[in-house]
Amino acid sequence: MSQKNTTRQEDYSKWYNELVYKADLAEHSDVRGCMVIKPYGYAIWEKIKDHLDKRFKETGHSNAYFPLFIPKSYLSKEASHVEGFAKECAVVTHYRLKNADDGSGVIVDPAAKLEEELIVRPTSETIIWNSYRNWIQSYRDLPILINQWANVVRWEMRTRLFLRTAEFLWQEGHTAHANKQEAIEEAERMLDVYAEFAENCMAMPVIKGRKTESERFAGAEDTYCIEAMMQDGKALQAGTSHFLGQNFAKAFDVRFADKEGKLDFVWATSWGVSTRLMGALIMTHSDDEGLVLPPVLAPIQVVAVPIYRTNEELEAINEKMHELSIKFKSLGISFKYDNDDNKRPGWKFAEYEVKGVPVRLAMGPRDLSEGKIEVARRDEKTKETVSFDGIANYVVDLLDEIQRNLFDRAKDFAVQNTNRIDSYEEFKLLIEKGGFFSAHWDGTKETEAKIKEETQATIRCIALDEPMEDGFCMVTGKPSKQRVIFAKAY
Amino acid sequence: MSQKNTTRQEDYSKWYNELVYKADLAEHSDVRGCMVIKPYGYAIWEKIKDHLDKRFKETGHSNAYFPLFIPKSYLSKEASHVEGFAKECAVVTHYRLKNADDGSGVIVDPAAKLEEELIVRPTSETIIWNSYRNWIQSYRDLPILINQWANVVRWEMRTRLFLRTAEFLWQEGHTAHANKQEAIEEAERMLDVYAEFAENCMAMPVIKGRKTESERFAGAEDTYCIEAMMQDGKALQAGTSHFLGQNFAKAFDVRFADKEGKLDFVWATSWGVSTRLMGALIMTHSDDEGLVLPPVLAPIQVVAVPIYRTNEELEAINEKMHELSIKFKSLGISFKYDNDDNKRPGWKFAEYEVKGVPVRLAMGPRDLSEGKIEVARRDEKTKETVSFDGIANYVVDLLDEIQRNLFDRAKDFAVQNTNRIDSYEEFKLLIEKGGFFSAHWDGTKETEAKIKEETQATIRCIALDEPMEDGFCMVTGKPSKQRVIFAKAY
Repeated sequence: MSQKNTTRQEDYSKWYNELVYKADLAEHSDVRGCMVIKPYGYAIWEKIKDHLDKRFKETGHSNAYFPLFIPKSYLSKEASHVEGFAKECAVVTHYRLKNADDGSGVIVDPAAKLEEELIVRPTSETIIWNSYRNWIQSYRDLPILINQWANVVRWEMRTRLFLRTAEFLWQEGHTAHANKQEAIEEAERMLDVYAEFAENCMAMPVIKGRKTESERFAGAEDTYCIEAMMQDGKALQAGTSHFLGQNFAKAFDVRFADKEGKLDFVWATSWGVSTRLMGALIMTHSDDEGLVLPPVLAPIQVVAVPIYRTNEELEAINEKMHELSIKFKSLGISFKYDNDDNKRPGWKFAEYEVKGVPVRLAMGPRDLSEGKIEVARRDEKTKETVSFDGIANYVVDLLDEIQRNLFDRAKDFAVQNTNRIDSYEEFKLLIEKGGFFSAHWDGTKETEAKIKEETQATIRCIALDEPMEDGFCMVTGKPSKQRVIFAKAY
Repeated sequence: MSQKNTTRQEDYSKWYNELVYKADLAEHSDVRGCMVIKPYGYAIWEKIKDHLDKRFKETGHSNAYFPLFIPKSYLSKEASHVEGFAKECAVVTHYRLKNADDGSGVIVDPAAKLEEELIVRPTSETIIWNSYRNWIQSYRDLPILINQWANVVRWEMRTRLFLRTAEFLWQEGHTAHANKQEAIEEAERMLDVYAEFAENCMAMPVIKGRKTESERFAGAEDTYCIEAMMQDGKALQAGTSHFLGQNFAKAFDVRFADKEGKLDFVWATSWGVSTRLMGALIMTHSDDEGLVLPPVLAPIQVVAVPIYRTNEELEAINEKMHELSIKFKSLGISFKYDNDDNKRPGWKFAEYEVKGVPVRLAMGPRDLSEGKIEVARRDEKTKETVSFDGIANYVVDLLDEIQRNLFDRAKDFAVQNTNRIDSYEEFKLLIEKGGFFSAHWDGTKETEAKIKEETQATIRCIALDEPMEDGFCMVTGKPSKQRVIFAKAY
């Protein structure tokens, strides 16, 4: 803990990695690319899950669970899906180990080879649509609105905690509909759910948009996304919602009889967010001192530390804090009173600062005698001394204020770092410093690929609220009807 | 739905399988041994999770997440653990697929062979203790009280939905302690948590006990368990809690400095329950008409069905039910009003019966005019007509009464089918009919194995509340100090 932190200015990437360790959120395991999510990090993920799950249920979805393993042949059934997903994945080929003849340990039993290899799911469209075939006969069986909380594996060569790991946790919604319009509405509805969650719970402003064809999910007809700007000006795709058309229904032969008895293929959506959101949360708000958490997602919203020399002083403070903890409990505030005698107040202050606890209270003998308490807010690193009477309600208001302030701060940053741009020369210069660029593009894959190759920037999305505007592609000069968002991305 | 159910009497095993399908709880997937947990089944599992998770947190535990994969060599590190777990498991050997040269689909890329095979976790002691080595230096780092909700895979040859599947969902607690006594207390505490949950939430009476050496968890010094009696008289192990001694600390070299600075190995426990509890829940209470659920775990606690001919009648009933739904909501009762016009009341009655909804309300025009409502309870299949005024509170009391009745009924059954027995001849005869048998045993593995071979019965546990009593082994006549529980088991 005593080691000086790397600052964002010095090395943003190193700052992030250090922060994840120092705030005790996660660590690399010995298994290549797989992380251990530590209790404090997992407690934040549990809050994210709870808030999302509530929203999924409010919009009519139920949770279910499908197998971890996907038969290899399933992946080949949807042509573009296999291109996107079948390559880098964990393949189960055997189902038994045995003792080595030479006593050296256990070895894979060659006699226990699977007839067909199983793939650890990289995503579950195929296995789920294979089940849906048996669940759907007529329009009466539709819509099916199912979500799954699960672990998935994509064999990544370069991994970073939360942002890109071989195994990660996520939710994947998979819905089935009787017509195209309803499926599109579902995909859009879930994008709205993600955006509302990101802004109101994570205090993270996002742009809602659609992906270009080359950035689409493998097997989708349309991919919607929310994109957020990190403090280094890079974009992070925080959630996606796909309109899958009838692609998976056709691949798995899922048909339904409509009211007139006519058979048609079922329409599909899928949508997901993952532990990647943890990375987004960290990079949106945190500072050089450590994690900064929005109160809505903070496992500990308020911490109090006693300052004392004698046992008598400690006991008097304990009593006041006991009162306060009852009040916080009734107000639904998660409160920790840390009167551990083995650690000094200074150590505790540093610990809760690096862990991003939104509000820290401190009380010493003088505060006690004067009926006061010190209140420090993590976001702005300010402190003030206020009356102990009414402190609970004061803190409730302060938590709201912090939640709002974090959003506003991030929103201001995003606005300041979003530029309209019309010159490709200027673009190539400015993109190096990061930020979002709203520019005209001729709509071709070739131009998109050229920009990516020359600048590493990609089209993050075509913003849903982007007005139509006649203009000319900044690269080719060809006509364009609408600006799109470019950025370098995680 | 119209097909006649198999009764428990006719074929208990077939009755169970049919019920799981008819109540829409789960189904077999195309992936060998892996099940699909359907939304209604998963909703019950979510309730089980919530009730358990609350109890784990109240006893000081935090959730975390460790990798799905375990390097093959880890399994060999604890000698008895590898014997118990390394054999039947899913082995990942490759990390990439590629297009077949002949265009026939995708094949495993032989160039992408892992240096060391990865095992899909059958349980996580090894990977977790490998992490704990870095987390623990001194007594100040102890205890570590962590739980994980996860999927695990054990390659089972004969599978049954919920009871024995290749992949299943579970929680696994893994704790680390500075001394033996504290670890034993933890293992016992979690057994108590399981027993209290089983009895108060699942309405399932259990016997708390310890396993004999041959029935212990691979790597444990002592295995505690809760055993429940199913309606066919067979035992189902519903949860286990292990005192692991210093076995895993030694295997993974996890030492801590005590207050005097002396190094010692850390003491461990692990404990778990799984989706197997769903099987226990089903088999404890259900009847020939379908699922019977204790109100505490029922996704829908109360359902109401309108009986009407005209739209006017329906609207008048709708209005009353809208009132009622507001009352139920404020009382925390999960209520469904099913006024779907496409289905007849008789169909709905059958549907909610097979799904085990504890209380069904029905209201027709005559009830309406008389200010009455029909109340049917699922457990006893009785119904009565009561005043609509005060129906909400009436139902709240009834739900309590049903919860209690289910427990009492199961408890009576268990008591009636538990026998003290001293003659092995008699034992061999009676064990065929099922039930628990409290008998003297000479404490040897040989006798235990002989009984198992001759009768298929095993020692379920040495009950914690079993008094010491001098006696003679029913098989060998050798002296015994205490009776143990024998039964055939799932």
